[in-house]
Amino acid sequence: MENFVFQNETRIVFGKGTERQTGSEARKIGRRVLLHYGQGSIKRTGLYDRVVSSLKDSGIEFIELSGVVPNPRLSLVKEGIELCRKHGIEAILAVGGGSVIDSAKAIAAGVHYEGDVWDFYEGKATPSSALPVGVVLTIPAAGSESSVGSVITKEEGLLKRALNTPVIRPKFAILNPELTYTLPPYQTACGIADMMAHIMERYFTNTRNVELTDRLCEATLRTIINNSAKVFNDPEDYNARAELMWASTIAHNGLLNTGRVGDWASHQIEHELSGIYDIAHGAGLAIVFPAWMNYVMQHDVERFAQFASRVWGKEINPFDMEDTARQGIESLKNFFSSIGLPVRLSEAGIPDDRIDEMAEKATLDGPLGNFVKLGKKEIKDILLMAK
Amino acid sequence: MENFVFQNETRIVFGKGTERQTGSEARKIGRRVLLHYGQGSIKRTGLYDRVVSSLKDSGIEFIELSGVVPNPRLSLVKEGIELCRKHGIEAILAVGGGSVIDSAKAIAAGVHYEGDVWDFYEGKATPSSALPVGVVLTIPAAGSESSVGSVITKEEGLLKRALNTPVIRPKFAILNPELTYTLPPYQTACGIADMMAHIMERYFTNTRNVELTDRLCEATLRTIINNSAKVFNDPEDYNARAELMWASTIAHNGLLNTGRVGDWASHQIEHELSGIYDIAHGAGLAIVFPAWMNYVMQHDVERFAQFASRVWGKEINPFDMEDTARQGIESLKNFFSSIGLPVRLSEAGIPDDRIDEMAEKATLDGPLGNFVKLGKKEIKDILLMAK
Repeated sequence: MENFVFQNETRIVFGKGTERQTGSEARKIGRRVLLHYGQGSIKRTGLYDRVVSSLKDSGIEFIELSGVVPNPRLSLVKEGIELCRKHGIEAILAVGGGSVIDSAKAIAAGVHYEGDVWDFYEGKATPSSALPVGVVLTIPAAGSESSVGSVITKEEGLLKRALNTPVIRPKFAILNPELTYTLPPYQTACGIADMMAHIMERYFTNTRNVELTDRLCEATLRTIINNSAKVFNDPEDYNARAELMWASTIAHNGLLNTGRVGDWASHQIEHELSGIYDIAHGAGLAIVFPAWMNYVMQHDVERFAQFASRVWGKEINPFDMEDTARQGIESLKNFFSSIGLPVRLSEAGIPDDRIDEMAEKATLDGPLGNFVKLGKKEIKDILLMAK
Repeated sequence: MENFVFQNETRIVFGKGTERQTGSEARKIGRRVLLHYGQGSIKRTGLYDRVVSSLKDSGIEFIELSGVVPNPRLSLVKEGIELCRKHGIEAILAVGGGSVIDSAKAIAAGVHYEGDVWDFYEGKATPSSALPVGVVLTIPAAGSESSVGSVITKEEGLLKRALNTPVIRPKFAILNPELTYTLPPYQTACGIADMMAHIMERYFTNTRNVELTDRLCEATLRTIINNSAKVFNDPEDYNARAELMWASTIAHNGLLNTGRVGDWASHQIEHELSGIYDIAHGAGLAIVFPAWMNYVMQHDVERFAQFASRVWGKEINPFDMEDTARQGIESLKNFFSSIGLPVRLSEAGIPDDRIDEMAEKATLDGPLGNFVKLGKKEIKDILLMAK
């Protein structure tokens, strides 16, 4: 186990009807709030009205900035920063999924900074402070509600870059599983792939002696798998929705990688996919991850056999660990298919004529991954395996 | 799953040599510190010197208060409060195990309070603020390093009472598994029973649909069990010590009871045992818990069968769940025995002539437990089963 520092101060307010506490939670972080959201689904579902009435009940003044799109854009972030400065905003309330939260974090970091907020995403500067951010979560997937990360896309050149810093970690996150009843099945499935990927990126590590975090990862994966079928059978199964929602936060709140080094190559390969093609992040991960697994499996067959056994319930064949390992990867692939996700590029309508370009772009800053280091050739091979 | 709020802001600094960061961590919470510790084992091991030199390197002024004993005493707490007031202390650094930390928390809560600090432990008042507390942990057991609890004993009448409030949660906790190499085997074993008990108190619940937290509990228990044998074989097995230390914190940091209601009768029954007899809390729990389990098992045989299967690897016998359930309880009992703990009152040299008195005292404020409500008669029966 490696040395580590772990601290996560996000206050989680979880359960039925909890969005009615938005005002009382928000009041602790600011009296003048920017209400930030997406393209209006929160108005259709009535969530907007409940949040606004809770803010008003708590005497909070707010202005609104809507229009966040998946792969949130730098231009809207800049608009938000200007709004916050003009109106003396003290805190930002993100109502939505990972894109809205990431956009809110970017605005929060930018308000106090004299330069271009994009500097943070290019690694040219580090924010020393940020406006406090609060969250009402509507999509369990990205884990941004209690993470230190934000991913923003600059329209010019379609550059997708990440900022990771504790100053942007949300102060509170309201998680009501009922709010996820109305998610379309495909979006639910993409969220499931995203949260599983967050765990698997951490699970496949070269760090030895990480039994507790291994088992916590396996526990969370099994729970996600077991409850997935239930939400597709009955989208209003509160308990299954609740398991998925809490699992999605735990998957990415930092606990599961204490003392270990994760891989993260699949995430970066996927960013190239969704950078070029209009594909949801979770769907891209469902395509990339099984191919990556088959490609790197020989690096640590025992770990893949453990994954097959403890996550998928496969019996370990001590005379053929590779066979056990492959069963685990097959199970993952079949699972993704079963919830309606593509597991090949062709299934997502993605041709194979720009694989070289994606492999090139993915490795511009050097090889990817920690479990196995992958250069351009290796990434190309993985994408070809995923054809 | 029940609605819940979860927040734990303790900064965990984990790993080899981390006590050398004591000064830099402490400086964030105060420049004038009360260094609080026990009966001098930290001087014998050299930890005291390393901590003091780290404090000096960071320019921290400190005064000392040593002498904390197991089942920490109110009189020393009051002495600490006076010292803090007299010297304008800004923060308290606890170097030790649960008793030292609990004592530090009591002092921290008392400094700002004009009345008697015991009021907090009798429920007559609630602290609205406390001095910040930092921890260098030497015994993985109580989980006090990131919990909201403090248990103090008032000498007059040997009253043992608890305070639970977020204002006393430590700001940071330094966890170096190397510091636990010198723990005597019996103390290691008592710590193992204590951390397992913290999980089992939460595990046996009437709340339905708590799959994720069930599995996280099971994952933590299995890790503790698997690594226990290793530390008895080799007290300087860093990796096994590290798994136990991190597990002990997770067992009691609040995560494992999100959305569920724990039981806690066994803890309260044990408090009566250690209140009268000079027995370590962990040893008392090893006696009480298996008896409690056998007594309440019929209340939810399936849950005990799940415990047997997922924690102890027993095959579930669908035709005789009770048999499976009993195998789990037997396994726990055998495990406690195997690490040198008593599992019967007689093994701890405790006679059966004050069982009535203990059952009486335990239920003075009403029945115990949430999984099964236990009155005086039931507690007496449990203690008789543990003879």
